[in-house]
Amino acid sequence: MERSQLIKGLQTILGADKVLDDKLDMLSYSYDSSFKARNNRYIPDVVVTLTSTDEVSKVMKFAYEHNVPVTPRGAGTGETCGALAIEGGIVIDLGGWDVIEEVDAENMQVQLRPGVIHADLNKYLEAYGLFFPPDPGSSQMCTVGGMVANNSSGLRAVKYGTTEQYVLGLEIVLPDGQIITTGGVNSRAIKNVSGLNLTKLFIGSEGTLGIVTKIRLRLWPKPKSRGILMAVYDDLEEAPKTVLEVYKAGILPSGIEILDASAIKAVNEYKPEIALPNAEAILLFELDGNPASVEWEGNEVTRIVNTRAANAEWSTDPERMAKLWQGRAVTATAAARLRADGSRIFAGEDISIPLNQVTESIKRIRALGAKYGIGVVNYGHIGDGNVHTAPVINPEDPKEVELANKLVDEIHLTAIELGGTTTGEHGIGAVRSQYARQEHGAALDVMYAVKKAIDPKGIMNPGKLLPKEGDNKDVSTSASS
Amino acid sequence: MERSQLIKGLQTILGADKVLDDKLDMLSYSYDSSFKARNNRYIPDVVVTLTSTDEVSKVMKFAYEHNVPVTPRGAGTGETCGALAIEGGIVIDLGGWDVIEEVDAENMQVQLRPGVIHADLNKYLEAYGLFFPPDPGSSQMCTVGGMVANNSSGLRAVKYGTTEQYVLGLEIVLPDGQIITTGGVNSRAIKNVSGLNLTKLFIGSEGTLGIVTKIRLRLWPKPKSRGILMAVYDDLEEAPKTVLEVYKAGILPSGIEILDASAIKAVNEYKPEIALPNAEAILLFELDGNPASVEWEGNEVTRIVNTRAANAEWSTDPERMAKLWQGRAVTATAAARLRADGSRIFAGEDISIPLNQVTESIKRIRALGAKYGIGVVNYGHIGDGNVHTAPVINPEDPKEVELANKLVDEIHLTAIELGGTTTGEHGIGAVRSQYARQEHGAALDVMYAVKKAIDPKGIMNPGKLLPKEGDNKDVSTSASS
Repeated sequence: MERSQLIKGLQTILGADKVLDDKLDMLSYSYDSSFKARNNRYIPDVVVTLTSTDEVSKVMKFAYEHNVPVTPRGAGTGETCGALAIEGGIVIDLGGWDVIEEVDAENMQVQLRPGVIHADLNKYLEAYGLFFPPDPGSSQMCTVGGMVANNSSGLRAVKYGTTEQYVLGLEIVLPDGQIITTGGVNSRAIKNVSGLNLTKLFIGSEGTLGIVTKIRLRLWPKPKSRGILMAVYDDLEEAPKTVLEVYKAGILPSGIEILDASAIKAVNEYKPEIALPNAEAILLFELDGNPASVEWEGNEVTRIVNTRAANAEWSTDPERMAKLWQGRAVTATAAARLRADGSRIFAGEDISIPLNQVTESIKRIRALGAKYGIGVVNYGHIGDGNVHTAPVINPEDPKEVELANKLVDEIHLTAIELGGTTTGEHGIGAVRSQYARQEHGAALDVMYAVKKAIDPKGIMNPGKLLPKEGDNKDVSTSASS
Repeated sequence: MERSQLIKGLQTILGADKVLDDKLDMLSYSYDSSFKARNNRYIPDVVVTLTSTDEVSKVMKFAYEHNVPVTPRGAGTGETCGALAIEGGIVIDLGGWDVIEEVDAENMQVQLRPGVIHADLNKYLEAYGLFFPPDPGSSQMCTVGGMVANNSSGLRAVKYGTTEQYVLGLEIVLPDGQIITTGGVNSRAIKNVSGLNLTKLFIGSEGTLGIVTKIRLRLWPKPKSRGILMAVYDDLEEAPKTVLEVYKAGILPSGIEILDASAIKAVNEYKPEIALPNAEAILLFELDGNPASVEWEGNEVTRIVNTRAANAEWSTDPERMAKLWQGRAVTATAAARLRADGSRIFAGEDISIPLNQVTESIKRIRALGAKYGIGVVNYGHIGDGNVHTAPVINPEDPKEVELANKLVDEIHLTAIELGGTTTGEHGIGAVRSQYARQEHGAALDVMYAVKKAIDPKGIMNPGKLLPKEGDNKDVSTSASS
């Protein structure tokens, strides 16, 4: 379809004020946080800013009829090109649809539209003593719709799991414009095993099966207390061992974060006043629960940590906790500023490996960094093996970009080789689908079959999540390059 | 296909000792715990007892080629005809495949085959300080494979969720015999968002998409302590209010069970020595965690309960806890023996409603029981609104059977009307699919599309989960009768 016809058609359906088509607007929808989007421009043909299910349905019917690709977008904080119009067409911007429709405190549920910002939701829920536990690093910016699309998690997944654990139902506009409700049309049940579990199928499908227009979340009572423990290690290998010992003691912290030597160095160069101890690794444990529980577990974790760490500090004082946490809080920014002429890239940044391979993976990534002459900062959610690796390069230098792409490929392959995955929480998007056959084997064909059953014309966010069929059919380590 | 040919074909593939075909054997595979199976006999053509993925794959290839229906079966403890050969064909008995292949304690995971009994698994895991939290009433008999097929839960779902929360990956034999692994071919990652979430799609699909031959479960550290609180209420309405107040206090018990007056009466008639107080309702709270946490929460819940209950008792003493729990432990049996000439039927027994509709639903079910002259015992998992209703009838009396069927239909419709679902944990099977259109609306068509994409010949457990396409298309309250 001609671009001008496309724009005209959408203007007729929606009115002119909901349809963006000028060059500057298109540019601002052409990137996200990914390295790939830094090196490529994915300019949509047109953007529509929608705030009702009816509008979304009308746009999808139009797109379906005319075979136009459609890419849904929340806040654009993704790191995989997930919300970018790789094949052109329409971007549906849902970021402005930020309506919390109802808090049903008696059933510990909330119904909301996809554009609500994660942090805003939890702030709103404070008055009810409830919260939505997943805690992505982009909490202040990312939308709950985006979290559903990517099955986001973050700091608290160890104890609280990922977004999918809290989604009881979804309203979805299908590729042909039809509207469905998963989890029961009028249901507010907390437990429900009726029918195929479409809710969970749509979560994490990255907008490739339909567009989420409403979300029903189960909430949890907000814990009354929390505490932070910082443990400093002279030997990297001791850190993951502590994590296992804490679990064996029957304790499930709400978060366990690691900064390795590279991250400690980055933080200290960025903010010398934080003055993290020079060490091989720092672990940060967050414990939450009732006051008695937090105190008991704080003592117990301190005891366990002291058998392996050089030193440890435990606090439940809000000011001191913020102080202990500040190194972790600035790690991502610190990594980004490690080189005056460079910048942290989001690529190969989200591997998730078995707990007993964390040390090995960090060692290998250090060696890979040395091999390619690229500094890599390692930090992340060690509690569930989700390590964020931050290569720092000069993205204007084509040679460094080329080397970085090779490094990133090897990081991904290392994760698979160690029994992990290329992505623990950020998703596949357009940057990791080349590993799908290696990761999933024949299951990939079932994914294709499901995709075709729901999106027969292939207009929903094409080029994301699944590789083009026929690509990369061979299972071999070299197939991923 | 002729039955004799079918048997001969399977004998050729598997050897004669794995193929059962005599009449008595067929009879023993013709029922489960459901009321429907009591009144109908679903005799399979042949049963095969399998203990390897290769065998399952060969049988499925054969069945696929010859268009023979296949029904997988674990322990047959289901209450929905889910494991019965409604349309004849092959039953694959996986109950003997009870192998725990590996406990990977360092990554808090276990890999096992589908025939492992739930209680056996948790007993085995004790040595590692780990456990698989879902706790179905049939724990001593049911298989983990069956739990995956039905997304089972039970007593601890309030805090620990359902089976799906713990399944990291599955090996599945597809209808055409192909073998896939979901959650990553060689993955031991705890967190993984790569690809469409097929794991969760297969969980709860009741054997209609393929056969689960291996399960990778995430485990949790086993809490060190627990305590039980029994609260006795003179007014039914006060009980659910307490539940909400406990949540609001930031406390998530591991279980909250209710016995209403009918259940209390049933227990006291069955075992007078238990001597439950005559009351409108009894609530049982189970709290678990570290010792300090359990003590703190026990005190807090006692304080909350005392504002509404006639009396309450809290204990962490194992003997006393068993005593407090024994009324709940025998409720199902007590209901079954309420009438000398009658028996409890499993039908309409598993509704799940919003928490703030629990009182209303029990009142309506009492009125329905009176309308049809049938005693109904109400008990269950009030913490997540999952109420078990146990109609007690003389199943040999056709008149009572007819009335019971009408009662059960109204119980299901009441659940839907109150914003709940016809099934919180037992599943749809062949007994509740007539409500699918009412429960799911247009989402049912997406379920059909997914089913067809994965099982194009419709040989996997036909007649379960989804109504026959074309049946019951109209959405109206009378469509379900």
